[in-house]
Amino acid sequence: MALIVHKYGGTSMGSTERIRNVAKRVAKWARAGHQIVVVPSAMSGETNRLLGLAKELAPAKPGDAYSRELDMLASTGEQASSALLAIALQSEGQPSVSYAGWQVAIKTNSAFTKARIESIDDARVMGDLNAGKVVIITGFQGVDDNGNITTLGRGGSDTSAVAVAAALKADECLIYTDVDGVYTTDPRVVPEARRLQTVSFEEMLEMASMGSKVLQIRSVEFAGKYKVPMRVLSSFTPWDIDINEEAASGTLITFEEDEQMEQAVVSGIAFNRDEAKISVLGVPDKPGIAYQILGAVADANIEVDVIIQNLSKDGKTDFSFTVHRNDYAKTIDLLKEKVLPALGAAEVAGDAKICKVSIVGIGMRSHVGVASKMFRSLSEEGINIQMISTSEIKTSVVIDEKYMELAVRALHKAFDLDQA
Amino acid sequence: MALIVHKYGGTSMGSTERIRNVAKRVAKWARAGHQIVVVPSAMSGETNRLLGLAKELAPAKPGDAYSRELDMLASTGEQASSALLAIALQSEGQPSVSYAGWQVAIKTNSAFTKARIESIDDARVMGDLNAGKVVIITGFQGVDDNGNITTLGRGGSDTSAVAVAAALKADECLIYTDVDGVYTTDPRVVPEARRLQTVSFEEMLEMASMGSKVLQIRSVEFAGKYKVPMRVLSSFTPWDIDINEEAASGTLITFEEDEQMEQAVVSGIAFNRDEAKISVLGVPDKPGIAYQILGAVADANIEVDVIIQNLSKDGKTDFSFTVHRNDYAKTIDLLKEKVLPALGAAEVAGDAKICKVSIVGIGMRSHVGVASKMFRSLSEEGINIQMISTSEIKTSVVIDEKYMELAVRALHKAFDLDQA
Repeated sequence: MALIVHKYGGTSMGSTERIRNVAKRVAKWARAGHQIVVVPSAMSGETNRLLGLAKELAPAKPGDAYSRELDMLASTGEQASSALLAIALQSEGQPSVSYAGWQVAIKTNSAFTKARIESIDDARVMGDLNAGKVVIITGFQGVDDNGNITTLGRGGSDTSAVAVAAALKADECLIYTDVDGVYTTDPRVVPEARRLQTVSFEEMLEMASMGSKVLQIRSVEFAGKYKVPMRVLSSFTPWDIDINEEAASGTLITFEEDEQMEQAVVSGIAFNRDEAKISVLGVPDKPGIAYQILGAVADANIEVDVIIQNLSKDGKTDFSFTVHRNDYAKTIDLLKEKVLPALGAAEVAGDAKICKVSIVGIGMRSHVGVASKMFRSLSEEGINIQMISTSEIKTSVVIDEKYMELAVRALHKAFDLDQA
Repeated sequence: MALIVHKYGGTSMGSTERIRNVAKRVAKWARAGHQIVVVPSAMSGETNRLLGLAKELAPAKPGDAYSRELDMLASTGEQASSALLAIALQSEGQPSVSYAGWQVAIKTNSAFTKARIESIDDARVMGDLNAGKVVIITGFQGVDDNGNITTLGRGGSDTSAVAVAAALKADECLIYTDVDGVYTTDPRVVPEARRLQTVSFEEMLEMASMGSKVLQIRSVEFAGKYKVPMRVLSSFTPWDIDINEEAASGTLITFEEDEQMEQAVVSGIAFNRDEAKISVLGVPDKPGIAYQILGAVADANIEVDVIIQNLSKDGKTDFSFTVHRNDYAKTIDLLKEKVLPALGAAEVAGDAKICKVSIVGIGMRSHVGVASKMFRSLSEEGINIQMISTSEIKTSVVIDEKYMELAVRALHKAFDLDQA
């Protein structure tokens, strides 16, 4: 008997027929003697429907002023799908109970629309599991210290699932989704992309952060921090396939170095066109610049990705970074209003039509020449590189958005990712 | 400055355009210096949509086995509309905050799908009001002692509004709805029906219990218990009409006897085809029968309306009562399985195709011959009376459903209700 957390995405919960399939699959696992906790997303389209209504009422920047109320609103989608799944399970003869985030004390900070989980009370859940119930916990949401409902941001149900798995010391966290695993890159861009049997936690983190959309980045961080074994697999296999076959399908996210002996140099190509580039030009080159610029950005709860500071010339330097496109206009405004005057910097420039392409691979640690192979490959395609950022297991470039597919295909081929 | 509770029904909240109108109306009241608490229903159609999904998953008697989860599900409709209204108010420049039932401790018992409010914590709400915010509290829902979400049953938002008004010692509770007041009877059945300027609490109670649909009965009970001044008025007048004109519109529900000096003998004709008649035949006539029959029904959380016990003959008696049609099959089953064997009664019979028609009027207390005038009027139309039930201010008859409109029209005319 194992304690297993299942997470089902919005597409898997997209209709009553699909919810019934989820219920049959979950009931199969429960009948096999496992204790099952399910974290479902809202039915696909529901969160957009709700936020669309809010946008009709308050067109201007709804993400900011109304964020507490947006969380009150959006959190209802998961509560409804959780209750529906509980009903479907009971209708299959499987005792079950659903809980909203606040009912099992999923405590978060108060950063509405992008809150972070701080703690979960497991007593109530363990009591139900020991009584033979499947426990359903709404994904995507929590409650802050003042009793306000919070949400974790898009994709937050993955994070909920892993956080629940960590709190319950679950044996495995199965992320059921509409793809059957993690691929070397997006098969819609490169048809030759292959599914990976395993991927290291660090690679997955880089891929998730690059918007490969299989998993939300914070869920992978959580999984890494608490060493929660995590598997991405398809919810569209027949619900009644052999449970052992199902348990071995998809892509396993590993934490042990020695599991990666056969690792290729590069495991995958990630890409992301959700970012925008912002440069602060003519900054006086003195200590504290980065903090002055990025501190203000962080205080506004805006996440920064790539950060580059150029060499100084004539006592001035240029400082560039990328943010999510949704935060682009807000960041520009913020810099102009608050940061430029205080810094004595010359101007702010930006470009929202960029993309970031990365090669990711834990094998890069011990291989030289990987980055230069990447640059050569892009150069052969005539693609100009605007920014470069490197880590031990990743090299990223920012390029013009229009070259994205071309770059990804060229790199996938250059690193032989189409071959097993 | 007054503290006023506004309640808006599902039709009034039925689209973002209508929600915006509600926001403008509420903001007008707030600008006039009043402290406003709003209790909105779910957007029209939403509760049915959600419960429809549940029914697809669990067709058989969803009201029973799945009731906890149905409440988890249905309560999301009001939470969403409350958040949307808060956003609309903020977009109008009016500070506001929305709370789910559990966030302001609307404590209920655990009778899922038809819970009763036990207490409300007013501290948080008063704090927000004193800070100049409009406070929005989800209608229809609460939380039980175990932290489970409960709902109050259809129309429960009225009850929420009055309970909130009572807890906050509000000066008035305005029930905005899609009709402009309480009528002598349903104008769709009798075009000559007139709007009443005032109606006594007791009359309103009788009319609400008869399904006149303007107000939910428990809200009227609550209003009476806590002497909450309550007004039914239209949410479809232009939002910017003069506030004094608006405050005097609709129908006021009064509590003071001397306000009713000019009261007509009969104030209105109520009717209801939501009930079904059940008879337990051949019951041994001994003490405790009523308790044995109705105790079992009450234990199943089924509400009973008219109760009649016939005179005993040969030591046997017949016992009849009415229940909501939704509870008809369940009640019959219950009686056959549990009550008949224990009682030694002969059989259970029932008829779902009935309706109840009542004349209601506080003036009946001091006038004789009112009931006989009713019976004569029905007799002249050839309508057979199946059951009769009387109270100090009401006389009800149960008749064949097909005669309902005929009976209502005849009685409306007989008691001169078409004349001011």
